[in-house]
Amino acid sequence: MQTHSQTISDGDKILIITEKKKRYLVQVRDGKKFHTSEGFIEMSKVIGKLSGCSIASNTGARMLVFKPTITDMLMFLPRTTQIVYPKDLGYIVAVSGIGPGSVVLEAGTGTGVLAAFLANLVRPSGRVYSYDIKPENIQSAAVKLRALGLDEFIELKHGDISAGVDLKDIDAAVIDIPEPWTAVKTCREALKPGGVWVSLSPTIEQVVQTFEALDESGYADLSCVELLLRNIRVKRGMTRPEFLMRGHTAYIVTARKTVD
Amino acid sequence: MQTHSQTISDGDKILIITEKKKRYLVQVRDGKKFHTSEGFIEMSKVIGKLSGCSIASNTGARMLVFKPTITDMLMFLPRTTQIVYPKDLGYIVAVSGIGPGSVVLEAGTGTGVLAAFLANLVRPSGRVYSYDIKPENIQSAAVKLRALGLDEFIELKHGDISAGVDLKDIDAAVIDIPEPWTAVKTCREALKPGGVWVSLSPTIEQVVQTFEALDESGYADLSCVELLLRNIRVKRGMTRPEFLMRGHTAYIVTARKTVD
Amino acid sequence: MQTHSQTISDGDKILIITEKKKRYLVQVRDGKKFHTSEGFIEMSKVIGKLSGCSIASNTGARMLVFKPTITDMLMFLPRTTQIVYPKDLGYIVAVSGIGPGSVVLEAGTGTGVLAAFLANLVRPSGRVYSYDIKPENIQSAAVKLRALGLDEFIELKHGDISAGVDLKDIDAAVIDIPEPWTAVKTCREALKPGGVWVSLSPTIEQVVQTFEALDESGYADLSCVELLLRNIRVKRGMTRPEFLMRGHTAYIVTARKTVD
Amino acid sequence: MQTHSQTISDGDKILIITEKKKRYLVQVRDGKKFHTSEGFIEMSKVIGKLSGCSIASNTGARMLVFKPTITDMLMFLPRTTQIVYPKDLGYIVAVSGIGPGSVVLEAGTGTGVLAAFLANLVRPSGRVYSYDIKPENIQSAAVKLRALGLDEFIELKHGDISAGVDLKDIDAAVIDIPEPWTAVKTCREALKPGGVWVSLSPTIEQVVQTFEALDESGYADLSCVELLLRNIRVKRGMTRPEFLMRGHTAYIVTARKTVD
Repeated sequence: MQTHSQTISDGDKILIITEKKKRYLVQVRDGKKFHTSEGFIEMSKVIGKLSGCSIASNTGARMLVFKPTITDMLMFLPRTTQIVYPKDLGYIVAVSGIGPGSVVLEAGTGTGVLAAFLANLVRPSGRVYSYDIKPENIQSAAVKLRALGLDEFIELKHGDISAGVDLKDIDAAVIDIPEPWTAVKTCREALKPGGVWVSLSPTIEQVVQTFEALDESGYADLSCVELLLRNIRVKRGMTRPEFLMRGHTAYIVTARKTVD
Repeated sequence: MQTHSQTISDGDKILIITEKKKRYLVQVRDGKKFHTSEGFIEMSKVIGKLSGCSIASNTGARMLVFKPTITDMLMFLPRTTQIVYPKDLGYIVAVSGIGPGSVVLEAGTGTGVLAAFLANLVRPSGRVYSYDIKPENIQSAAVKLRALGLDEFIELKHGDISAGVDLKDIDAAVIDIPEPWTAVKTCREALKPGGVWVSLSPTIEQVVQTFEALDESGYADLSCVELLLRNIRVKRGMTRPEFLMRGHTAYIVTARKTVD
Repeated sequence: MQTHSQTISDGDKILIITEKKKRYLVQVRDGKKFHTSEGFIEMSKVIGKLSGCSIASNTGARMLVFKPTITDMLMFLPRTTQIVYPKDLGYIVAVSGIGPGSVVLEAGTGTGVLAAFLANLVRPSGRVYSYDIKPENIQSAAVKLRALGLDEFIELKHGDISAGVDLKDIDAAVIDIPEPWTAVKTCREALKPGGVWVSLSPTIEQVVQTFEALDESGYADLSCVELLLRNIRVKRGMTRPEFLMRGHTAYIVTARKTVD
Repeated sequence: MQTHSQTISDGDKILIITEKKKRYLVQVRDGKKFHTSEGFIEMSKVIGKLSGCSIASNTGARMLVFKPTITDMLMFLPRTTQIVYPKDLGYIVAVSGIGPGSVVLEAGTGTGVLAAFLANLVRPSGRVYSYDIKPENIQSAAVKLRALGLDEFIELKHGDISAGVDLKDIDAAVIDIPEPWTAVKTCREALKPGGVWVSLSPTIEQVVQTFEALDESGYADLSCVELLLRNIRVKRGMTRPEFLMRGHTAYIVTARKTVD
């Protein structure tokens, strides 16, 4: 998925950061202009340049141009449902031990952000099996994952996870559906002994109901956390936390499958 | 690194969680006992069992036994210096885009926790180059990384990163030393165009000085965040955040290399 | 200041909360209409009603009408500079011991929010002496404090607190100016033995400089805190923290005068 | 309650802060010694000294001696039940508008911390009516309030608030009992029109049940907040939040009585 060339070519996705710190993810198209409220840039000018270069807009604004990281790209996926934030994506990886070679069950596919993040990390020998009850989510995610070069590491499946899945000995289940407790039994059957459950839920009542289902269904070592991210504005003599912050995204529940 | 067998064998590392929620990382040794304040277990009893099994101690306490995840193992590495917490480990991965195939410069090696976490994620084709000025840290980390099966994905180097390194076109630099600003120039030379800088510092003055060095040395898109993790105690009718929490670990600074 | 009648009269200030949770502080004027995006109400309709009543707007929206608390009124004072938030106002009172009878030095007057809050609490026998270097702040605060019925409990003074003040044996100094360290010597002279210093500053560098000045100038028991307020959205089955929150207002520094 | 003499006399309560930042609240007794792990001081030495003085212990440790603020004293009241923290005490005052002259209904009396804090603020013309179902709490609080010189501003009542109270037109009700919803009807009858409800609860389920009771019983403008207090360790070059913090105390629910 990662290309080692840092030279920008026609057709590449690029991240543009304007002088006023606005961020855009754009596809380079020779001969086209890209317009912002700080003026436009000629796309032809960035072709052949290196990631990290700066280009002046027609009004003289300095635009930084980068080859995007996987997280840059995920943050720009069309958001039709609740987004999973980088702080939460990262925490899921850290607590689950998901990495290269892992086999992961995911539901629901949703916008595909979490699916793509996980698919990138299990490469090249692991697999993500991602389920969604809406065929349009599956179709839309398929297009995005192909564009990200991640389609070979993921299988998108249309279906209701609570009805059971045809998987065994998976390393981890990552559940981001409104009623995670409906996935508890399916995941227990699919997980390897000692395998990890992770679910995300915005409300505390979802968390309580998920805990009870896990506790009754052969899981142990249950935990629930939430992460608060504070942006710090750093400038000598004027350093302070940002005045506005995201107050909440989701609670993260983890557990492990036990065996009899 | 990950073994797909979930059956516990003699010589395996296991995670034991006692009835009172104490956690131990232990090596299985046939014929030995493992003693806790809730009684002892005979190691022979766990051999041949599956991860997620439970064993009674001699006093009847129920002990859960799991094959550890990479993060479980990292949390038990001997801590001679400041530890990097899972919330911060995860965030580094999410913002840097580090994953399978990434080439990463790391300093200092310290206890090896961050080095091991990164080495696990860049497998099998990526590499971590980890520097430390103390030879004893290098030696100790080498032993740990070999025990974790991660030694082939990392090169441990004794040396002062501020004196320069013999690396080019690395994807990311992850800096956890007391004076990160001394690594700014070396990392700019080693990073690929648009490559990512991440540093961790407990104090705000370190952050300010790092920001200034990055700003003056050809980096852009600087950011600083801190993550607060709250544990939620979940039990229907009694759900609330834990009374005690970790108030601070480190500020995380990120930036990207620009080109002229 | 507090009137014990809860019947709304012509000329009273009232708090209106609309069906969509918008809040307005308005003066009742018989014969006038009050317009909102949810329709208007005839002011005559609220005269003679009790606090806590609800009135329908011309479009049928239900408007709640309350006699405001002191904090309601303070939150609506015209804000020409940084506001002090209720969480911080309350903490100042709790840590300083300011209450009825206290004699308090305050600087700068600014919008008068903090001055008015303190004046309300030291009634009837205490006094607040509030200094500001801008005569327009003093004049504007005088009008507001008279409107709030608090003018007899406060003396507004035009002047630079760093030049010294003609006060002795005050209980507490509450300092909300950009360079609190310039007030450290004046306050030490004005405070009673053991008297309390409180200052508010948005940036960490201001805090460090204030700490150093206090430490060198005969104060002890220094502390610095910040308060994070999270709003919780409570609705059975959908309870969670609000997605947006105020990430930072100010650091609060406290200290006590020592004697030789 | 506040004495304007800052000279320490025999029989006075004093706050001692040791060189290692330990805090003690002690009564001065001529001829006695006060022992700490940093040595002892002769009580006779502090008599006649001013608040803010420092005394050497027999081992040479420097002990700071202050006349306590009301909050200092409250923080040392014997704690037989859950304590209300200064951040929460202050917020209650700020949002309720409680101040000199206010008439407040409080339940339960518990350790008397909240009762004493409120009694101090409503002086001299206001009153706190504090209810508890345990006679031993009432008796213990009576002793403490007399010692604090606050007994004339409070009436302690043995009884179950859910059975109704003989009060009318109170300004605010402050409820710190395990089942706040049982007090909703009584408080609505006792509150003045537009009067303020405040309750404290450690768990989210208590908050949900309280919200529902308030919503069904003639209250409006419901809110729920929690306050996180972070201590900042300030020292030039080493400034950072404290590693350990209190993660949770209580949720604070507020509402206002409506009229038909």
